[in-house]
Amino acid sequence: MSQIIEPVMRLINQFSKLPGIGYKTAQRLAFFVINLSDEEVEAFAKDLFYAKKKAVYCPVCGNLMQKGDSACAVCCDSTRDAACVCVVSDIKDVLAIEKTREYKGIYHVLHGVISPMDGIGPDDINITGLIDRIAQGGISEIILATNPDVQGTATAAYIAKTIRPLGVRVTRIAHGVPIGGDLEYTDEVTLMRAIEGRTEY
Amino acid sequence: MSQIIEPVMRLINQFSKLPGIGYKTAQRLAFFVINLSDEEVEAFAKDLFYAKKKAVYCPVCGNLMQKGDSACAVCCDSTRDAACVCVVSDIKDVLAIEKTREYKGIYHVLHGVISPMDGIGPDDINITGLIDRIAQGGISEIILATNPDVQGTATAAYIAKTIRPLGVRVTRIAHGVPIGGDLEYTDEVTLMRAIEGRTEY
Repeated sequence: MSQIIEPVMRLINQFSKLPGIGYKTAQRLAFFVINLSDEEVEAFAKDLFYAKKKAVYCPVCGNLMQKGDSACAVCCDSTRDAACVCVVSDIKDVLAIEKTREYKGIYHVLHGVISPMDGIGPDDINITGLIDRIAQGGISEIILATNPDVQGTATAAYIAKTIRPLGVRVTRIAHGVPIGGDLEYTDEVTLMRAIEGRTEY
Repeated sequence: MSQIIEPVMRLINQFSKLPGIGYKTAQRLAFFVINLSDEEVEAFAKDLFYAKKKAVYCPVCGNLMQKGDSACAVCCDSTRDAACVCVVSDIKDVLAIEKTREYKGIYHVLHGVISPMDGIGPDDINITGLIDRIAQGGISEIILATNPDVQGTATAAYIAKTIRPLGVRVTRIAHGVPIGGDLEYTDEVTLMRAIEGRTEY
């Protein structure tokens, strides 16, 4: 039996730990790395270190920022409306909303959602940070933009209940038929929400 | 506009270079790496280096082996039948055949297939190495086990034509209905090959 040699096996194991990468894909990636030049592998390893060393979370909103900065690019931008805070579960959601180029407020990243099944309670995500920000004043609206799935909806409901007594306006992003979508292929719940949330034309 | 900070962008670019990893997946992997501990990232970077440094190709058959060894585990194994050589296009194919635990011969890895569309001719893959091995004597059978796709079939045909004058038996792996497969859902070409290649029962 020819086993995979140990140095390659170790790299396969490293790739396997990454999310969404199964054993077969990890094997393919490892073989690809072996065929790279020494310089390319060195650059890859260096960039792993560099990203880990330089990327930290913004102390204000939890978005990514460079180590040494006082806050992230959004929080530092004086043209943004600091009175409007959009609450998202993940950094990826900040990027998705920024891509619209329309949102002018700032963010609050929870770094997770409440998920009792996975043992994640309200204290395990950054809700206290949000309450502190509201308590400091200057915020008039909180937009809850967690995903419209079970955990995201529960998290939004929990946050809404918690922060409503603090006197800020609490809103939730609209649910409905996506642009380019087709009524025939839209699920019943989405369609129901689209009708419930209808606006004057 | 909040852009992704440069250290993270660099890591995303590194992941994007890997085969089958698109931008969105690369972004997900980079964010995952940032959330790993310093030790985990260091171990990942080290294993990248280690695999690149230690994994080389066997001078005999082209399979993977540890640097410093004289040949790969299969070539060094005296219990294997060195008179029977299975020709495959890739190291992954060696692993696939080894998994059967039935094949007792040795290998020859071409590291590619003839593909004129991609500018890969017979001289760009390890065919001369195979001819040299046959010329050295001791080989009685060459099993062509390239993939049954256009390039794999063309490569097998080219090698067969080239080595037949050298006086070795040249065989091709069987094509037919896979075990557990269903005749109803088997394509016409496979079914035709299965009938053509029928054996006495």
